[in-house]
Amino acid sequence: MAVYTEVPDDELAAFVAGYGVGDLLSVKGIAEGVENTNYLLHTGKGYYFLTLYEKRVNPADLPFFLGLMEYLAKRGVTCPLPVHDTSGKVLATLAGRPAALVTFLDGVSVRRPQVKHCEAAGVALAELHAAGQGFTIRRANGLGLAGWRPLYDRFSARADEITTGLSALIEDELKVLEARWPHALPQGVIHADLFPDNVFFLGDRLAGLIDFYFACNDALAYDVAVCLNAWCFEPDFSFNVTKGHALLKGYQSVRKLLPEERAALPTLCRGSALRFLLTRAYDWLHTPKDALVKPHDPADYIRRLKFHRTIASADAYGIESTP
Amino acid sequence: MAVYTEVPDDELAAFVAGYGVGDLLSVKGIAEGVENTNYLLHTGKGYYFLTLYEKRVNPADLPFFLGLMEYLAKRGVTCPLPVHDTSGKVLATLAGRPAALVTFLDGVSVRRPQVKHCEAAGVALAELHAAGQGFTIRRANGLGLAGWRPLYDRFSARADEITTGLSALIEDELKVLEARWPHALPQGVIHADLFPDNVFFLGDRLAGLIDFYFACNDALAYDVAVCLNAWCFEPDFSFNVTKGHALLKGYQSVRKLLPEERAALPTLCRGSALRFLLTRAYDWLHTPKDALVKPHDPADYIRRLKFHRTIASADAYGIESTP
Repeated sequence: MAVYTEVPDDELAAFVAGYGVGDLLSVKGIAEGVENTNYLLHTGKGYYFLTLYEKRVNPADLPFFLGLMEYLAKRGVTCPLPVHDTSGKVLATLAGRPAALVTFLDGVSVRRPQVKHCEAAGVALAELHAAGQGFTIRRANGLGLAGWRPLYDRFSARADEITTGLSALIEDELKVLEARWPHALPQGVIHADLFPDNVFFLGDRLAGLIDFYFACNDALAYDVAVCLNAWCFEPDFSFNVTKGHALLKGYQSVRKLLPEERAALPTLCRGSALRFLLTRAYDWLHTPKDALVKPHDPADYIRRLKFHRTIASADAYGIESTP
Repeated sequence: MAVYTEVPDDELAAFVAGYGVGDLLSVKGIAEGVENTNYLLHTGKGYYFLTLYEKRVNPADLPFFLGLMEYLAKRGVTCPLPVHDTSGKVLATLAGRPAALVTFLDGVSVRRPQVKHCEAAGVALAELHAAGQGFTIRRANGLGLAGWRPLYDRFSARADEITTGLSALIEDELKVLEARWPHALPQGVIHADLFPDNVFFLGDRLAGLIDFYFACNDALAYDVAVCLNAWCFEPDFSFNVTKGHALLKGYQSVRKLLPEERAALPTLCRGSALRFLLTRAYDWLHTPKDALVKPHDPADYIRRLKFHRTIASADAYGIESTP
């Protein structure tokens, strides 16, 4: 739920006039995304999304995010396309915030993905990885291995308020991952947050990908691990291996995982589970009790992490045996 | 800011299928309105608003609200038109809430109305009053004179927490209004909440009216008083008589106020200022300090009320002398 920044109507009209998209016909604040302010605009030329970037987004990263969306869109990935203003720029300032106008994308995200959705997500992830090759702006993964311990240090003293034993679990996990992390896997542009809310479907057809504001350069297989966590667990936290199989099959239909990527998958899944556990635990401890926006429950990722700690090989995720 | 109720995707798809408006292509939660949950839907047939009625709306009132919107729309008022489902109904149940689908209306509300907007609002208000004649469902004004004292009783002990002297002001005002209130003015369907946020413009043209969820039967001139309060004060709380003149001129270009309505205008303006003061004061005292939705400041209506208490005749609002 969002809309933090109100935009005065005259400022908005002047802003829209700078894009050559016709007159402003309608503007609705969108209750989605907790990071930024989003408006849906109807203009003489169609529907657009206007995003005002709030304090969680580093303005220095915006050329990467917007450039990537444009690069991917031009290479066949269906994602919001930043609109250039009449002077050629995609990044502007509105109501004192960095702001961008992007095309509106039809599609509905599925809250309970089925096997077919997992396979389609796998295909789309691999296509994104392929399309991202050659994109020249770089962005480090601030929520990768190197970022986890500093993030944990910010709330370690309070971790056990969430559940007894959480600090011991995280400390042990950090040690293990720091020792085992695979540093030589194929790198590239990853989405890093391809949860079901960020994937649109129209009927059974995958219709587009959104929310590139965690995208960065990192191991491609790490992105696969993020998706296994996000798409293949059931509401009771059991891992659905049929969904895992479908996701991996979809991915490998476009890009085959190397033997070293397969071997690293359990470690990458642990790392990805820890990454979401850490941000959720931090938000959980720092959100006022009666806030309207409820933070995600970190317990979901404690359960996932504990599952991955029992896994010895990628077979358990449903990966097909040697091709 | 809203979206209280999440609708599972399969429930939503089934709901939309019942309206014959094509496939669901997109759904966005809207961060507007604090009373209800609103979604903007894109379907194969166009754009629609889906409203789920939350606890502040009495389900027994919905046939009035939805019936009125349809009645007005068919008599030339541009307002959201409730869509009938394939069985003919406009009121449904979704995610355990009463729900309705209405047409999407283009237009942008003006945050700082100019004189021309005030005149257009006056015209639209009178047209609404004319179009509402003959509508047979009735709804009492729960926030009219009879409702003010019971509402005040719910927070009177804490009124001075807002500002010293507020309880004395309200108590005196209630006494005066109960003694002076004009009960014999022409009655009809009133909007009762026609603030600038509820009026859409496209350029200078008034493009539609929304949010009929306070509409009821009451004195037509009371609705004029609501609008004088909502449209004609400047940010420094001074009354802009040019705007008042424009609003009244617009209104009277469609429906002439009777001498007794003109005479009652100062009293009606006091009543309307008290009505918004009371609900805002109540919300102010009952909203958690760190809630994301900030309640409206009751001070705005204390200032308006104090202004109206100095007014002896409608001339002060810019009404034209006897025709």
